Amino acid sequence: MSEIITPSILSGFMELLPEEQVLFDAIKSKIETKFQLYGYWPLDTPAIEKCEILFAKGGGETAKQVYRIDKGEHSHEQALRFDLTVPLARYVAQHTNELSFPFRRYHIAKVYRGERNQKGRYREFYQCDIDIIGRDTLSLINDAEIPAVIHQVFRSIGVSDAVFHINNRRLLNGMFEALKVEKNEEALRAIDKLAKIGEEAVAEMLAALGVSENSIKEIFEFIKPQKSNEVLIEMLDRKKAEWNNELFDIGVEELKEVYAKMQEFEVPRENIVLDLSITRGLDYYTGTVYETFLRNYEKLGSVCSGGRYDDLAKNFSKEHLPGVGISIGLTRLFYQLTQAEIIKPQKGDYISAIVLPMSSEDVSYSIKVVNELRRNNLHSLVYMEDGKVKKKFSYADNIGARYAIMIGGNERAENKISVKDLQFGTQDMMTVEEFIAKIN
Amino acid sequence: MSEIITPSILSGFMELLPEEQVLFDAIKSKIETKFQLYGYWPLDTPAIEKCEILFAKGGGETAKQVYRIDKGEHSHEQALRFDLTVPLARYVAQHTNELSFPFRRYHIAKVYRGERNQKGRYREFYQCDIDIIGRDTLSLINDAEIPAVIHQVFRSIGVSDAVFHINNRRLLNGMFEALKVEKNEEALRAIDKLAKIGEEAVAEMLAALGVSENSIKEIFEFIKPQKSNEVLIEMLDRKKAEWNNELFDIGVEELKEVYAKMQEFEVPRENIVLDLSITRGLDYYTGTVYETFLRNYEKLGSVCSGGRYDDLAKNFSKEHLPGVGISIGLTRLFYQLTQAEIIKPQKGDYISAIVLPMSSEDVSYSIKVVNELRRNNLHSLVYMEDGKVKKKFSYADNIGARYAIMIGGNERAENKISVKDLQFGTQDMMTVEEFIAKIN
Repeated sequence: MSEIITPSILSGFMELLPEEQVLFDAIKSKIETKFQLYGYWPLDTPAIEKCEILFAKGGGETAKQVYRIDKGEHSHEQALRFDLTVPLARYVAQHTNELSFPFRRYHIAKVYRGERNQKGRYREFYQCDIDIIGRDTLSLINDAEIPAVIHQVFRSIGVSDAVFHINNRRLLNGMFEALKVEKNEEALRAIDKLAKIGEEAVAEMLAALGVSENSIKEIFEFIKPQKSNEVLIEMLDRKKAEWNNELFDIGVEELKEVYAKMQEFEVPRENIVLDLSITRGLDYYTGTVYETFLRNYEKLGSVCSGGRYDDLAKNFSKEHLPGVGISIGLTRLFYQLTQAEIIKPQKGDYISAIVLPMSSEDVSYSIKVVNELRRNNLHSLVYMEDGKVKKKFSYADNIGARYAIMIGGNERAENKISVKDLQFGTQDMMTVEEFIAKIN
Repeated sequence: MSEIITPSILSGFMELLPEEQVLFDAIKSKIETKFQLYGYWPLDTPAIEKCEILFAKGGGETAKQVYRIDKGEHSHEQALRFDLTVPLARYVAQHTNELSFPFRRYHIAKVYRGERNQKGRYREFYQCDIDIIGRDTLSLINDAEIPAVIHQVFRSIGVSDAVFHINNRRLLNGMFEALKVEKNEEALRAIDKLAKIGEEAVAEMLAALGVSENSIKEIFEFIKPQKSNEVLIEMLDRKKAEWNNELFDIGVEELKEVYAKMQEFEVPRENIVLDLSITRGLDYYTGTVYETFLRNYEKLGSVCSGGRYDDLAKNFSKEHLPGVGISIGLTRLFYQLTQAEIIKPQKGDYISAIVLPMSSEDVSYSIKVVNELRRNNLHSLVYMEDGKVKKKFSYADNIGARYAIMIGGNERAENKISVKDLQFGTQDMMTVEEFIAKIN
């Protein structure tokens, strides 16, 4: 006999038990259903891409985290994707003439990042992305529809309401112009850290970028929370007059339009927070930016973020392809929701009925019964192993079946089934048809 | 401006256009629905496993094809999975005490093999597996249920009926004992090649294994097709008396029982072929073996195969874990079905309606309309870009929308919508409610 190897998986990878997997898949399926309802098309690209594609933008931090494939010297350099955005850019550039624009796609798939090992951070995780890509132009109204999809997604998951924190990069960059801040990319990244590291630390970072003390004060005054979106909009209108900056004016009008149209798309007003401190650290966003929090679970942090970018595929195409998109990091979200016990697997959710033949003579009749249950779309099975009745019921309990159906001599003689409700403990004899009627 | 990198993917990987992807996903979803209906639990393991797990059995051909991950010297040796069976074995051994046996699981996911590049062979492909794993024992009735699931899967896909070619390894090994063939593993692999290389070549292989000319003749006589399953069973019963071999007798009785029980699970008799030439080359099968062909498309070859194995996880566990399972290679099947034009994307299948505002004044009303459509679960969207009417209709056609809904001043004034049936070309004005009633 060969040596036993201790079974284990690599650290930083999520693997679930069956009941947990059912719960995970149910959430994933609800997300997908809403993406489809809103007219986004499915996409499924290879998990492995050429390195020249993945690192077209230049490597940086990402390159260090990437899972490279070792396929011998003569093969193309290849690696596992670290997000779904680079594959989208490559796909749209490659198939520009075969696609219809605006191209609306969703993609739910695993991505890979060799991050430092820490709780709740996974090296393999699901991203659930939607994006709308235009050719040359893309209406701002798309920016307002994206959060509406996410709003419906979280409604259907049923855990909590999504609250959208919305801002606009043009508005921030206009402010920087007005305040003579030159290194605006770096300044945006500094402000992005506000919630994490606090005002003092951000002030230091801004000072290091050469921003004057007065400007820092004005920035903090500007980005601080307001009593309401309406108060904030009034403030923005006053600043328009004060700063007289074209970029700022465009940003303000865009933000107001997205805010108005989001409500037309039925995102409730109370689920929208115009939040000038939201910047999104990533450098490709150019207009609208979103972060999403769950009401009453704000401590989980942003569960979904995205925004508007000017040119998706500039490394792969001469076409101008502006877009807007958002991404849910599902694996981490699932970890957070289960850790905080906001969701947990429910017994009786997956298997409607298990048929238990009392003896081998009852097997054929049991198979007839399960055939009928399955014809009526009930998740069901026969327990086909020999053994004591107690063992059979224990299995029925362990798999969380909703009903156990016992088949013995009496049931066969009367052409009926004995149904035990495993939730309430009651037991009745009835025909299969009666059982199906009862359960439906 | 940075240099443009030509967008492309690695060879041997499948990537679909959106309409094709919808078709692929529809088939995948039908497979999953049936797996769930029959009470199999979902499983989703990491795509990356430790090499010590993947190669526990010893490397061989598989090791050469594997996609290894390059993560620096100090990390565990790791690679992408090449099937879903090794991860299942590892999972069941790792979680034995947390699972209920028989453990019924399905797994639909991508696997990776660096095969020689050829048409219709993919290096990344979906496998759709079901397996039932017992602890210590597993009833033979499970062997009969597995093809019933696959029968329903192909019924629901609607392309063709699945025809199951069934055999039993014990029966073959009993025959080898009776005929004094010693190298039975090699002999099984030779017979497995019969359909591909013909009788003469297989005879040469058997002769090389030391099988006598007479025995070779008798083997071919034994495994040749019979007029009917009933004639074949009669022949087997005669051989029982002639050969008087215990293993053979067990194999024959198992095959007869699986045949009978498959029919109880409602696999039609005409969809079952007892076929003694089916051996499955792989060495871990011990009893029942299946190959599946599509009626009228037999030239596609076997689309689904599997069988009974005695001990799933012997490399990872001291427990005795017998099982039975089957696997659909979905990516290759999809390629074959589309190449042969047996299936093709249908227009009007994915987007029920697209709302076309005639001018920017019509946008808000259009959003109200699409909100209502989506509330009624119709896949729908608003075309939000500026442009001429012709361009808007051309987009509606290109995405294969079933209906185009035009919104202009008249529609707003009357609180109605103008509906154009893009399949039949007819056009009508009606309320949103009337449209929803019409489409449902």
